Amino acid sequence: MKKYEALAEEIEVQITAGTLRPGERLPSVRETIASRSVSPSTVFEAYALLEARGRIEARARSGFFVKAPTPQRSEPLLARPQPNSHTVIVNDLVLEVLGSIRERGIVPLGSAFPNPALFPLERLARETSAGLRELEPEQMLHDLGPGNQELRRQIALRYMSNGVVASADEIVVTSGAMEALNLCLQAVTRPGDAVAIESPTFYGCLQALERLQLRAVEVATHPRDGVQLDSLENVLQRERVSACWFMPNFQNPLGALMPAEQKKQLVQMLTRHQVPLIEDDVYGELYFGVRRALPAKAFDDEGWVMHCSSMSKSLAPGYRLGWAAAGRFARAVERLKLSSTLSVAVPSQLAVLRYLRAGGFDKHLRHLRSLLALRREEALRCIARHFPSEVRVTLPQGGYFVWVELPPQVDALELHRLALSQSISVAPGPIFSADQRFRHHLRLNYGHPRLEQLEPALKTLGRLVAGLMKRPALMPR
Amino acid sequence: MKKYEALAEEIEVQITAGTLRPGERLPSVRETIASRSVSPSTVFEAYALLEARGRIEARARSGFFVKAPTPQRSEPLLARPQPNSHTVIVNDLVLEVLGSIRERGIVPLGSAFPNPALFPLERLARETSAGLRELEPEQMLHDLGPGNQELRRQIALRYMSNGVVASADEIVVTSGAMEALNLCLQAVTRPGDAVAIESPTFYGCLQALERLQLRAVEVATHPRDGVQLDSLENVLQRERVSACWFMPNFQNPLGALMPAEQKKQLVQMLTRHQVPLIEDDVYGELYFGVRRALPAKAFDDEGWVMHCSSMSKSLAPGYRLGWAAAGRFARAVERLKLSSTLSVAVPSQLAVLRYLRAGGFDKHLRHLRSLLALRREEALRCIARHFPSEVRVTLPQGGYFVWVELPPQVDALELHRLALSQSISVAPGPIFSADQRFRHHLRLNYGHPRLEQLEPALKTLGRLVAGLMKRPALMPR
Repeated sequence: MKKYEALAEEIEVQITAGTLRPGERLPSVRETIASRSVSPSTVFEAYALLEARGRIEARARSGFFVKAPTPQRSEPLLARPQPNSHTVIVNDLVLEVLGSIRERGIVPLGSAFPNPALFPLERLARETSAGLRELEPEQMLHDLGPGNQELRRQIALRYMSNGVVASADEIVVTSGAMEALNLCLQAVTRPGDAVAIESPTFYGCLQALERLQLRAVEVATHPRDGVQLDSLENVLQRERVSACWFMPNFQNPLGALMPAEQKKQLVQMLTRHQVPLIEDDVYGELYFGVRRALPAKAFDDEGWVMHCSSMSKSLAPGYRLGWAAAGRFARAVERLKLSSTLSVAVPSQLAVLRYLRAGGFDKHLRHLRSLLALRREEALRCIARHFPSEVRVTLPQGGYFVWVELPPQVDALELHRLALSQSISVAPGPIFSADQRFRHHLRLNYGHPRLEQLEPALKTLGRLVAGLMKRPALMPR
Repeated sequence: MKKYEALAEEIEVQITAGTLRPGERLPSVRETIASRSVSPSTVFEAYALLEARGRIEARARSGFFVKAPTPQRSEPLLARPQPNSHTVIVNDLVLEVLGSIRERGIVPLGSAFPNPALFPLERLARETSAGLRELEPEQMLHDLGPGNQELRRQIALRYMSNGVVASADEIVVTSGAMEALNLCLQAVTRPGDAVAIESPTFYGCLQALERLQLRAVEVATHPRDGVQLDSLENVLQRERVSACWFMPNFQNPLGALMPAEQKKQLVQMLTRHQVPLIEDDVYGELYFGVRRALPAKAFDDEGWVMHCSSMSKSLAPGYRLGWAAAGRFARAVERLKLSSTLSVAVPSQLAVLRYLRAGGFDKHLRHLRSLLALRREEALRCIARHFPSEVRVTLPQGGYFVWVELPPQVDALELHRLALSQSISVAPGPIFSADQRFRHHLRLNYGHPRLEQLEPALKTLGRLVAGLMKRPALMPR
């Protein structure tokens, strides 16, 4: 941890403990320099970090003050999925919703992507150009297959600096995390097998299960802590499960972050049952806390965790560069990769390799995280202000989604259509479930719209919700 | 057809008909200009084309002469595959062979790629740079999914100029033809189904069948004309076949070119049986004849042909840009694409789009074809000179593979290992068959080694074959 991070953490602990109260003035920069013998830049950076995290605010000519806590609504309730495995049929709803998000001129609260303007696209373009200019033609062919060797080494180094052991040989470069997840799933299942998934879950997971003709067992997933281990243990006792597909860090759509101890127990449980864990960790770098949360793979001694991630949400959207570090299944994944899409495009590999080697990724990530944290603050403030008080919402510790539970009268699909007519997209709850549950839920993306779009869009949405609430409640389902 | 192409064709007809005999001098450029009222450049280009195709040769200060015909060995025999469908298990041999080809310092006669130095990589690099520089960040996300709309339109225009009707909407951009073929196959099959394939066939086809747990029915495939329709009709009468996966233009590994009339009958037969045809046409642009051979899709009125191709062998190796024009199955393919790899990398899409729009593709292709035709001449000359006379070999009309049938004493796998010890790779026959047939066959790539590498490598290979022939014949299998 850097000095300024340590200082920021210390102040944050004091705020959380109540030692420093909302509205109180922090020691001035000059006082802090003197009292702690640190450099001015350390204090400035620490304060900037706390400001980005929404813990303090600067007031002109007065200094820094502890902010009132994020307006906190009640958390959505834990959903209890049906206990047995079932086939997965993804209807056209997902494609319809995703299509509507892609239209121009829509405020993309329903989007799955962060705003591409948040990324160093110009520098990546320069790295792509320089990489292609210097490339020997024969190298083009050598970078096919599981990926450029040096890129795989850079990815392995990044695992190391995040406290995870993964060798370059274990890593297969893929077309985004989406391909990595699909290949891992195929490597450990056969048609008809059951796979344990979260409830709600990412619709891409449902599509993958449908494509491979797998059955789903949904496991209760808490909006704050993620997969409930007692529910999972029940499932494993009851059914032969071929794999789990979970997202322990900033789950999509909940934003839930599984605590480290719970991840450790999860890996121990699955190792005991000899069930592979497909770990989707694409949002792992987008944390608002002091440091990166370990992935479940950090607790894996026997190679049962297949860790999948990508650069699509953290560095390079559109370059389609992801990877799997698939433990004991690495060779099987590599083989599937060779026979399905052969390789990731060389220009994308070169761009990311050169970027990682030149350094600056961590600096970019700090900047990206502070921008996303600011937007989260703004989104939660607007929801508290403009949504009816019955609406429940998560307080995500990372990523760029909030999960919203609407009152039972409000049908999310109807809200989705009404919002579209006002040029706002949302992601309605039913696309996150194999049996169209979560009919009164929404996933909202605060990382894609422009900051100044958030308030008017959320205000409109709040008004629409209030309108729908005036009708009698639908039968619960 | 351009004027020089018409002139070249006319002369070629005279050579083939024997009007112009080997060793005879062609009319001088000046005489031809006068006798036909054409421009000097038309004559020069026509002669250059004929020279590239190996039909005439320039002799210093004497003019152009009809060349002796390509030294012609006997054609390999038609193989008779086992009549019934069977499961496909691709053993590690394919991976071992492909791995050995990727090593540096090996003369890559076993490679699947043409020499990357034959491609306009510098111009593509410039197009990539310019495209990324001009790209609006939001466009990054709009180009995900089935592909950039303008790129799909450019591909549709190319179909049109090749005499094929395909709309931009029908086209899904994929990670090389490999992904297109895999998605098409998955769109029309379920695990356990039977798929008709060529014998021998591309190992990628076998890997795809294995991955999707499909059974193979191999259809007799002539080294010159491709799939034998009577054999196919027998198969269709006998078994419920969910799809055919064929390569009518310059089949890999045979190099066979199915005549247009036969393609038409093929499409009629499959339409009658309502069996989709997955058409792999990645080598279609690499013809040595006067014009591009039509794909089977040109004869398809009812949307049963799923045409797959890519830029990997004709323009941009390593960019992983392919596509499927999947007829009535287009939406199903698009859906599978979205849920498996989402999209092709935007830098690759931009590079190819800008290249196609700026023009020059046809000029590059003419140059590429003449270079490959020259290498074919050289390879056939060296094989005729250095291989024992019992060896049979194809005379491909396009692409960059010859298929070699060795005497029954010579085991291709043993030859593969011996050749590797001499730093030469070959692709042994058994990797092109689900049941490891073609034990006395080789696929040789004359388009990847440098021109000056061909003679020494083929001389060494000929010597190794002669050595192995001195041993008693193995039992036929």
